[in-house]
Amino acid sequence: MDYLADERKKAEFDVDEMKIVWAGSRHAFEVSDRISKLVANDPGFRKDTRTMLARKELFKNTLRKAAYAWKRIHDLHLSEEEASRLRFYVDEPAYTDLHWGMFVPAIKGQGTDEQQKKWLPLAYKMQIIGCYAQTELGHGSNVQGLETTATFDPQTDEFVIHSPTLTSSKWWPGGLGKVSTHGVVYARLIINGEEHGIHGFIVQLRSLEDHLPLPGVTVGDIGMKFGNGAYNTMDNGVLRFDHVRIPRNQMLMRVSQVTRDGKYKQSDVPRQLVYGTMVYVRQTIVADASCALSRAVTIATRYSAVRRQFGSQNGGPETQVIDYKTQQNRLFPLLASAYAFKFVGEWLTWLYNDVTQRLQASDFSTLPEAHACTAGLKSLTTTATADGIEECRKLCGGHGYLCSSGLPELFAVYVPACTYEGDNTVLLLQVARFLMKTVSQLGSGKKPLGTISYMGKIEHLMQSRCTVQKAEDWLKPSQVLEAFEARAVKMAVSCAKNLSKFTNPEEGFAELSADLVEAAVAHCQLIVVSKFIDKLQQDIPGKGVKQQLEALCGIYYLYLLHKHQGDFLATSYLTPKQAALANDQLRALYTKVRPNAVALVDSFNYTDHFLGSILGCYDGNVYPKLYDAAWKDPLNDSVVPEGYHEYVRPLLKQQLHTAKL
Amino acid sequence: MDYLADERKKAEFDVDEMKIVWAGSRHAFEVSDRISKLVANDPGFRKDTRTMLARKELFKNTLRKAAYAWKRIHDLHLSEEEASRLRFYVDEPAYTDLHWGMFVPAIKGQGTDEQQKKWLPLAYKMQIIGCYAQTELGHGSNVQGLETTATFDPQTDEFVIHSPTLTSSKWWPGGLGKVSTHGVVYARLIINGEEHGIHGFIVQLRSLEDHLPLPGVTVGDIGMKFGNGAYNTMDNGVLRFDHVRIPRNQMLMRVSQVTRDGKYKQSDVPRQLVYGTMVYVRQTIVADASCALSRAVTIATRYSAVRRQFGSQNGGPETQVIDYKTQQNRLFPLLASAYAFKFVGEWLTWLYNDVTQRLQASDFSTLPEAHACTAGLKSLTTTATADGIEECRKLCGGHGYLCSSGLPELFAVYVPACTYEGDNTVLLLQVARFLMKTVSQLGSGKKPLGTISYMGKIEHLMQSRCTVQKAEDWLKPSQVLEAFEARAVKMAVSCAKNLSKFTNPEEGFAELSADLVEAAVAHCQLIVVSKFIDKLQQDIPGKGVKQQLEALCGIYYLYLLHKHQGDFLATSYLTPKQAALANDQLRALYTKVRPNAVALVDSFNYTDHFLGSILGCYDGNVYPKLYDAAWKDPLNDSVVPEGYHEYVRPLLKQQLHTAKL
Repeated sequence: MDYLADERKKAEFDVDEMKIVWAGSRHAFEVSDRISKLVANDPGFRKDTRTMLARKELFKNTLRKAAYAWKRIHDLHLSEEEASRLRFYVDEPAYTDLHWGMFVPAIKGQGTDEQQKKWLPLAYKMQIIGCYAQTELGHGSNVQGLETTATFDPQTDEFVIHSPTLTSSKWWPGGLGKVSTHGVVYARLIINGEEHGIHGFIVQLRSLEDHLPLPGVTVGDIGMKFGNGAYNTMDNGVLRFDHVRIPRNQMLMRVSQVTRDGKYKQSDVPRQLVYGTMVYVRQTIVADASCALSRAVTIATRYSAVRRQFGSQNGGPETQVIDYKTQQNRLFPLLASAYAFKFVGEWLTWLYNDVTQRLQASDFSTLPEAHACTAGLKSLTTTATADGIEECRKLCGGHGYLCSSGLPELFAVYVPACTYEGDNTVLLLQVARFLMKTVSQLGSGKKPLGTISYMGKIEHLMQSRCTVQKAEDWLKPSQVLEAFEARAVKMAVSCAKNLSKFTNPEEGFAELSADLVEAAVAHCQLIVVSKFIDKLQQDIPGKGVKQQLEALCGIYYLYLLHKHQGDFLATSYLTPKQAALANDQLRALYTKVRPNAVALVDSFNYTDHFLGSILGCYDGNVYPKLYDAAWKDPLNDSVVPEGYHEYVRPLLKQQLHTAKL
Repeated sequence: MDYLADERKKAEFDVDEMKIVWAGSRHAFEVSDRISKLVANDPGFRKDTRTMLARKELFKNTLRKAAYAWKRIHDLHLSEEEASRLRFYVDEPAYTDLHWGMFVPAIKGQGTDEQQKKWLPLAYKMQIIGCYAQTELGHGSNVQGLETTATFDPQTDEFVIHSPTLTSSKWWPGGLGKVSTHGVVYARLIINGEEHGIHGFIVQLRSLEDHLPLPGVTVGDIGMKFGNGAYNTMDNGVLRFDHVRIPRNQMLMRVSQVTRDGKYKQSDVPRQLVYGTMVYVRQTIVADASCALSRAVTIATRYSAVRRQFGSQNGGPETQVIDYKTQQNRLFPLLASAYAFKFVGEWLTWLYNDVTQRLQASDFSTLPEAHACTAGLKSLTTTATADGIEECRKLCGGHGYLCSSGLPELFAVYVPACTYEGDNTVLLLQVARFLMKTVSQLGSGKKPLGTISYMGKIEHLMQSRCTVQKAEDWLKPSQVLEAFEARAVKMAVSCAKNLSKFTNPEEGFAELSADLVEAAVAHCQLIVVSKFIDKLQQDIPGKGVKQQLEALCGIYYLYLLHKHQGDFLATSYLTPKQAALANDQLRALYTKVRPNAVALVDSFNYTDHFLGSILGCYDGNVYPKLYDAAWKDPLNDSVVPEGYHEYVRPLLKQQLHTAKL
């Protein structure tokens, strides 16, 4: 029985067509749909007890799943695309993520053709398993501060890899702790006493025969991390080297080389290629954000439709929680954000391809803008998603605190995205630096490109005022875009003005960094809003589909406008009256989306297995499932708990003085 | 060696005197100091492996600690106050929290003298262990919607306690799952087919001989909750009754009675007493908020002083993270909030005593205001604290994600405070309702009292404009108070105006609830700001102590002013220029607090045991401790992990087809 059938009947749009929009294409939908069901129906991939397992048991089970996934991929002759979807839907962090996602790409991107020819076939067959050993105990954000050394020994034609201090211990690399046989290790290259910066080296860590660490290698797991299940399935590792020797040809030499006689030289491969990789990685992070947020929103939306509280009249049923405006005001902007991040992610894929093509043609002109925009979007989407998942958890009331709701694990497993691949605040400061540079060059005749091109309209934007007169005026995209552009320009210009008062620009940048971060956020939000609006200019088939997306787009920007009302008012682009009209329009859109809410999360097409949440189950039959799940907790193995005789009974019987404690 | 000694030398105030201020009195400081050290030095209370234990082991260890704590309390002849501090510093949620914190108070508050005489001695000696069984699977916030029934049987002079539906199962009560022998069970009283609302009943659940559930009782644990360790030490329970009979005298009858012949009557004890209890409970929640937030801030502040990243010049050490303005801008407002919540909590203690005295004199006049203000402060402080703990975790970079940082557990164990004892959004709506009522009565000559008295100045506040001309003007308390008062009044009046446009007031309230919540927040923030300012009017001894508190108070209100700039600008009390000056002053205060930051968290006087965080340890010797802690993870018990032979080796050796998976 479908307890949400009534909700589904209310939908005013074609859900199947929306599924295609969400997936990106009919093909992508079909692959995802097929593979996600394949995983969901295979008991080998069950995850419903994951949050109850102790670390060792949990980890062993992850090893099993990783091997089983690999076996299924082979047995079913899955394509590369299908295999990648399968690993995705298995939905359990494992060493394989780093092997495929970091180790292989590092060799591909930084290895010479010869190195690729040697190492990639081994990695592809998993005859070796690799990790990516960059971060150290004392250095994360500041890669140039890494302390591990790789000293060239011309006598033996080897590098000596060494950990000179405790803080130089590698710390955090996933897959390193217990599994990886090899690692790409980043170290400070030293030749003849001279330093040549940070480079990557392929280092074997464990014997391929007995899996024991090689001589000079100390390696282990760094211990428990946030959450039940979550990233505790991963063996994030610690690694120390005591003068470990590797052949010279294991330095990744695509960009720079060390010759037999100890000469350091650059190849003619442009170093800017590194930025192309960064655009790629951050694009996947933005895509992951829309996925994680949409999962949380699915759970909170379905349960808000199931759950009733207060407002019973004449003994009838109570009000569905989703009908409360306070609930809508927290939930629907997150629903809208999930769609917004999806579309900006799609656009980033386009940007990556564009940048790649330009790089191949040695056109580096768009790189700074692409770099700033991907850094900013990574920061914006991951922060909003982490906060959004936790908000969804709170929107489920007390039951959201149960692991069986799926939300605690979703939060714990997602939240490191705010820190890895660039700390979110550090990234926004990079965006701010780019903005300040753009402002300073505005007079020079250099035309701002791409996402920053609105700065070209600075004179108009600085003077223009919002012309909204009634709430519906806020539905005009041009009106909205100008508001976000004016806000972003004015905040950037205000920062630039304040910066110019400092004699030392770096001191000024440090002193004003909190304001600069806010200006960067304003710029990034403009990008997301404008890409959502762009998406709606496309032809989108399916009954009512475009109308729903328009409503969501409106919710997204009006919610931002209200949340950052202070920015818009401080820059005097808006009047308080116009801000109030925006808020009226926002409420009207909530009412419009309400009957479609459950169908809008159905459009994500997530299986109950993938969601891993009783509160979010498709059929809405929440309470019997919660009740049944409770009894599976290990504490319920026995009616009288372990410890009763030693620690509870003596207390009740007033015999504590003789009890052994 | 003290790695933070340099930081401590910088302090410009008397830390010992600040410790007294934080503790509330010299006596309170001395008790806390002595008992916290007693707990910290007792290996029986160690908690450093808590996040690694599987559920059963974890729970058994909690049972041991609870019994051991009870034994220590007796052996050392601790006073009531000392015993309570000891349980606090043991810092592990356990069934005893509910026994002492809910079961005993429920009998004291709702039981007749006779009932108290019978049950309290048993509870005091722990010959029985009790829980508080109110919340059900289908009903949390809406207590009047509880479904459990207590039907009077005049034949046998008994109540029949019954769970008529699945959703009527009791769900969540702490201590219920595995330990409690008794519970105060809330149920819908039915006499002769007629309903008389929700009442409390003392029900025995388990045999005092073999701990088995009594006939008709189904009871168990509801399963894993958010986080490692955290609330998984608690046996939150599920409970169903199948026509369980209890004697009539086990209904708690202080306020209403059922007579032998089945008559329902009210006693002359005023029902308003319930509100007095609510003020008490919420006061303790606000105090807990300042404690939890100050713990997180201690960890983040100390580690921000230890951690260095970027900015190395000429090979010298890198910049301490705490010197970055972006770090200060996130951390110092939380430090200030911890102090702000402490002082507003102290004031709530006063309020509770005041209300209690008035109630005893049958003066109910201040109750609505006291109720609104405690509801609002509970909501404001718990939301800010949960968000603040997570922000502190992020401020520690990647290492904050490790359980050994203490922050994941602190967050997971704290965050339910946003939901229990009144969902934070529901509470703000109650505050809003009170505000709307106050506004509507303003013309009636009824003078607003206490925290709402500023509404009496409405005509002045609606018209006044901020007179700040330079940044330092924002240090004047009168200036600040007027700004917060004007904002709160204007937001409330604006809501009232919009409400008046609706013909059905309840419909209007529902439609505008998001705006109403914002008006309620503005009111509550005003209370916290004004109580901090009041505190500074007192005589505060000790070199530099008052100056530091003044700086923190300034940070608290200027940070709020910046964060809610939109409110202040939308109500036209401020100009954008004046808001910018507030921001300049805020930055100046960060600079003032910076050299005192470590000493300001030392003033909380937390032991390393209580903090439970390597990143926050007093001596700042973080990295060796992190490194050593890693090796204690169960995964490091063996060099080659369990599962290697079954699931990793076959993969490496290309023998997966024969592997058993």
